[in-house]
Amino acid sequence: MKKLFNAKDRMPDDMIDGFVAAYPDIVCRGADPRVVRRTNLRTKDGKVALLIGNGSGHEPIAMGFVGEGLLDANVVGDVFAAPSPDAILEGIEEVTGDAGAVLLISRHEGDVINGNAAAMMAQDDGLKVQPLLMYDDISSAPKGQEQDRRGAAGTMFIYKILGAAAEQGMALDNLMRLGAEVRAATRTLGAALSPAISPLTGELMFVLPDDEVFIGMGVHGEPGVARRKMGPVKDLVTYMLDALLADGPIAPGTPTVALINGSGGTTMMELLTVYGEVTRQLGDKGIIPIAPMIGSYSTTQEMGGFSISLFTPTPQMLTLWRAPHRAPHFPHIAMQGR
Amino acid sequence: MKKLFNAKDRMPDDMIDGFVAAYPDIVCRGADPRVVRRTNLRTKDGKVALLIGNGSGHEPIAMGFVGEGLLDANVVGDVFAAPSPDAILEGIEEVTGDAGAVLLISRHEGDVINGNAAAMMAQDDGLKVQPLLMYDDISSAPKGQEQDRRGAAGTMFIYKILGAAAEQGMALDNLMRLGAEVRAATRTLGAALSPAISPLTGELMFVLPDDEVFIGMGVHGEPGVARRKMGPVKDLVTYMLDALLADGPIAPGTPTVALINGSGGTTMMELLTVYGEVTRQLGDKGIIPIAPMIGSYSTTQEMGGFSISLFTPTPQMLTLWRAPHRAPHFPHIAMQGR
Repeated sequence: MKKLFNAKDRMPDDMIDGFVAAYPDIVCRGADPRVVRRTNLRTKDGKVALLIGNGSGHEPIAMGFVGEGLLDANVVGDVFAAPSPDAILEGIEEVTGDAGAVLLISRHEGDVINGNAAAMMAQDDGLKVQPLLMYDDISSAPKGQEQDRRGAAGTMFIYKILGAAAEQGMALDNLMRLGAEVRAATRTLGAALSPAISPLTGELMFVLPDDEVFIGMGVHGEPGVARRKMGPVKDLVTYMLDALLADGPIAPGTPTVALINGSGGTTMMELLTVYGEVTRQLGDKGIIPIAPMIGSYSTTQEMGGFSISLFTPTPQMLTLWRAPHRAPHFPHIAMQGR
Repeated sequence: MKKLFNAKDRMPDDMIDGFVAAYPDIVCRGADPRVVRRTNLRTKDGKVALLIGNGSGHEPIAMGFVGEGLLDANVVGDVFAAPSPDAILEGIEEVTGDAGAVLLISRHEGDVINGNAAAMMAQDDGLKVQPLLMYDDISSAPKGQEQDRRGAAGTMFIYKILGAAAEQGMALDNLMRLGAEVRAATRTLGAALSPAISPLTGELMFVLPDDEVFIGMGVHGEPGVARRKMGPVKDLVTYMLDALLADGPIAPGTPTVALINGSGGTTMMELLTVYGEVTRQLGDKGIIPIAPMIGSYSTTQEMGGFSISLFTPTPQMLTLWRAPHRAPHFPHIAMQGR
């Protein structure tokens, strides 16, 4: 398998070694070696904790997003596998103070089962922990069944906005309400172009003809909903925006954040080209693009592809989206302007 | 060709459309549509201008590095091709005031010829423009012939440090001197694992056996200097650090910045693993790792591979390296701590 690693069973651990060595005044290992947490926790001083457990192999999400103004901790699972309930519980216990904690869960089966189990165990131990399910992928369940959808790149709006709000002192119940409102204002649709090599098997994760894209493929290679012939990218963007806006109409004049997330092996040249098409086509409908995010943040190894997320923030959400933070691998929207 | 684009001859233009649409209060198009410049230029108020012309297809370098505290302009060439002398001259004329300009040139044949020609034309027009050649790739010419080496990812230290110094008011001659000092303190060595598809031909840029890495391959697929069998990444890092430290010895106790740059298709999991090995092995030699940079910033499309750059800054250089900036796609070292 042509990947840079020492031993297969050490992949997440060696990666964590590099991460905490790089940014020691921001992140460190927790008592459990698979817990990465903020070096200077404020959660014992009345701040609500914000954390997530997830499978590794999708970096920089979520480990790279630990830091002031964003996550307090990430419990790092094996590649493409949710951490155990016990490991997530270790993370919760390490960072949760009297103000409680929001445990984010990106809606995938293992993450939901293990995350909910960990939250229940923590509650039994007397900790005020609330799990918040995140789902945004419109291809994975029809309109009206939003709660059955998968978590995709649009979950990053929840990470950032709750992270900033918690840093500013928002209480647990209000954070849970705000998270649900951000979730309701976000929709994502992805397209896969080329497969990645799975670190687990050393094999390609799927096969796709040379002239086709797969719409709606999941971040672990879950089957998509439609195949399309490759063509000019503007036609693909039109198709994807039509689907997103049919699912969640956006009125002319509405400020809208577009997130163009690369799957790992798609170039910045291509992602910027996609953003140019998205912003032009939204503009044609009178929608106002604002404070975008463009890059490969929620990845599936070196898979080729991208997703478009559309998010219609309230003014409060927009301010929190743009608030400064110190997470090493999350972009600095405030420094990027608009 | 499985890439996201509208028409082959529009690739750089469509990419620029997306970039300037995303960050309009930071960057805009110049009078020449292939010039991307800062929206609020300060170079007419006594600030020395800093700019570069380079082929596209390597993003985010260099277009993504335009912004306050970094580049004033980037002249964007066709894919993998230096812009013409006339285009570079347009960029120089647009941003150069009485304080003059540093024209950065990453040492590749076309860039050198066209950059020097543009600088001479600008000087003939009465502009105070100095070209600064950048070269750091130790595999491309032996020790003692440093001026024959290629520019590689380590050029980013010059971009950032001169960008911050110019923003703070440093004069042209001092910037040229500082740039040469940063260059002398930087060495880079790369390794290629898997090829990218060339946007020009639609074909793979090279072929490499499944179990081999190519040491010293250039950013346009220029042949490397050695092949090695794949193995544990720690052995590859040892080999590369030995070569870097033989070329430029670093005394124990020296603060050293490591840049782990991904070629495009190599995951953050792998780059962090490489950094973990680099920092551990440097530490074993008593060298002090500080203010690192880890990510895919100088890329060759979706090529698999990475480079290690070692940079031994003076305290002044380190402060400038960590200074705040607003370039959309350059990392914020100051926010990442240490």
